[in-house]
Amino acid sequence: MKTFFSEEHRRHFPQAELSGGQFVTPYERPSRVEYVLARLKERGMTDIVAPGAPDMAAIRALCAPDYLDFLENAWAEWKAEGMAGEIIAANFPARRMQAGRPPRNIDGKVGYYALASETAMTGGTWAAALSSAASAQAAQAHVAGGAKSAFALCRPPGHHATADMYGGYCFINNAALVAEAFRRDGAGRVAILDIDFHHGNGTQDIFYDRGDIFFASLHGAPEDAFPYFLGFADETGVGAGEGTTANYPMLPGTGYGPWSAALDDAIARIRAFGAEALVVSLGVDAYKDDPISFFKLDSPDFMDAGRRIGTLGLPTVFCMEGGYAIEAVGVNAVNVLEGYQDA
Amino acid sequence: MKTFFSEEHRRHFPQAELSGGQFVTPYERPSRVEYVLARLKERGMTDIVAPGAPDMAAIRALCAPDYLDFLENAWAEWKAEGMAGEIIAANFPARRMQAGRPPRNIDGKVGYYALASETAMTGGTWAAALSSAASAQAAQAHVAGGAKSAFALCRPPGHHATADMYGGYCFINNAALVAEAFRRDGAGRVAILDIDFHHGNGTQDIFYDRGDIFFASLHGAPEDAFPYFLGFADETGVGAGEGTTANYPMLPGTGYGPWSAALDDAIARIRAFGAEALVVSLGVDAYKDDPISFFKLDSPDFMDAGRRIGTLGLPTVFCMEGGYAIEAVGVNAVNVLEGYQDA
Ligand SMILES: [Zn+2]
Ligand SMILES: [Zn+2]
Repeated sequence: MKTFFSEEHRRHFPQAELSGGQFVTPYERPSRVEYVLARLKERGMTDIVAPGAPDMAAIRALCAPDYLDFLENAWAEWKAEGMAGEIIAANFPARRMQAGRPPRNIDGKVGYYALASETAMTGGTWAAALSSAASAQAAQAHVAGGAKSAFALCRPPGHHATADMYGGYCFINNAALVAEAFRRDGAGRVAILDIDFHHGNGTQDIFYDRGDIFFASLHGAPEDAFPYFLGFADETGVGAGEGTTANYPMLPGTGYGPWSAALDDAIARIRAFGAEALVVSLGVDAYKDDPISFFKLDSPDFMDAGRRIGTLGLPTVFCMEGGYAIEAVGVNAVNVLEGYQDA
Repeated sequence: MKTFFSEEHRRHFPQAELSGGQFVTPYERPSRVEYVLARLKERGMTDIVAPGAPDMAAIRALCAPDYLDFLENAWAEWKAEGMAGEIIAANFPARRMQAGRPPRNIDGKVGYYALASETAMTGGTWAAALSSAASAQAAQAHVAGGAKSAFALCRPPGHHATADMYGGYCFINNAALVAEAFRRDGAGRVAILDIDFHHGNGTQDIFYDRGDIFFASLHGAPEDAFPYFLGFADETGVGAGEGTTANYPMLPGTGYGPWSAALDDAIARIRAFGAEALVVSLGVDAYKDDPISFFKLDSPDFMDAGRRIGTLGLPTVFCMEGGYAIEAVGVNAVNVLEGYQDA
């Protein structure tokens, strides 16, 4: 399996994450991908290439124009306003405050386009997010060109980003870009399987009314886990998308037994849906030692999960998402890929 | 004029305010009221008394039960979860994430009940908020008992708090408690005039569908100023409350000329409404040197504003709200009271 990866990810390296009422070093940090690269090499998966420039037309087709303008210009506006720190959202269109008018002031604008405050933006964030999207796009093109599968080693991740909001370390929804590209390249139906510990709220939001794209997510129950306000089992899609969203929220302490049962159910639903291509939002924070998650998967479980995903026999793009037990991220992510290849 | 004030306000003294991507010492700090007390004494307004216990039944009638439970227990839950810092909201029911299900986890719960992240909560916040509400209630009782007016030197302030959300330094809406108390004591119609620099989003939200309570707010335009997402001129109320909300958003640099014209219009509307009692949300952050605001009122303007308010001739409770040019807060707030008394 070929890996697509851009060193430009380093341009996104905020110093601060708001957590527990304090600033901590962000859990989502550049060193995460070093462990994945090292493990790929250790396992002989050395076909690792840099993507070309991002396909901006596809990014513009996915995201709201005002949101992309915001991502591109936020740092300059923030600094012009005299803000001393990194960009961190402090004001929100809270309950019953959602008239939908984005503020002029950058401090308000940040809150309008954010869905959480843990994620800081810096001067390099936009470039890094584009390079991450470019890796996803290149991986999809590789598969559309005939490869069975590809791995987009995306950083920053994407699955929390909607068409018009960032948060949960995500800015542009890489998995959604891949799904849309598969559709444009001729796949009638596409499935996205999100095995990151956190609910893929952004991906769900983007495709919630779409009958041609199936979205399944295995994640910590929203009552207990970020992003807290989406990912309930009764969210199943609307309109043409009714029945094309499948959420599997699970409680603290969930191990591989119930988790893999949910995975099997999701796989069966994807098969029944008739997907012709698959996107896997590959987060490995379901790992037992992940510092911000509460599932109990062990490293071999990720290989088994990869095998089960492989039984679908679909052209597949894996997009890297979360995983914060940094030294184990490489083994766990590559285990999924190896399991898939073994299937 | 008698002043109601509780020393319990000191129990709310967070160390951190999220501002410009950094933590700064909160603008809303205990020393603010010291300057008001000093100025009251300087001007011979020495009738300053502590309120009794808060009327909890009235607070429960105003606020959502789950919100009050949250305020009372948040600190214990936050500490039980092992959080190291003060309570600061980091996750929100953002756009299209408002299913309305409060999380179990305290980190998610905080975001559900917050409308912004600048406001930290600590172990003493609940007690301080109750003492502030008690001052407002005691001031109202004093006026209901026959006094022409009273000053509730409230801290923390209240006008950003809704029945179920805190933020903007506010936890319990003191002005709303006073308005409801006037209604219970027999006033058929009550007006709330909010001259704080910031839109009184909480007060508006509480009474938006009420025909018996008129709300007028003079404030920085929401495009440019906190709370950013409410306070537009076209928000005029709904249902029975249609026409009983009047917003006067004004642009950066607004001076006393246009500001006092808006005040006159609000006063005329209150007179036409037929209010029998008046609550003034007395913020003085419209002052030219306020560090977080952008109007250009000078200290004598506040006295003139008080005189204009006094022409209504209504029984009036003044509730202290914002004002962060700390050394000027006393002069400006007491100027409003003196102007009112001179009218
Ligand atoms: Zn995750
Ligand atoms: Zn204010």
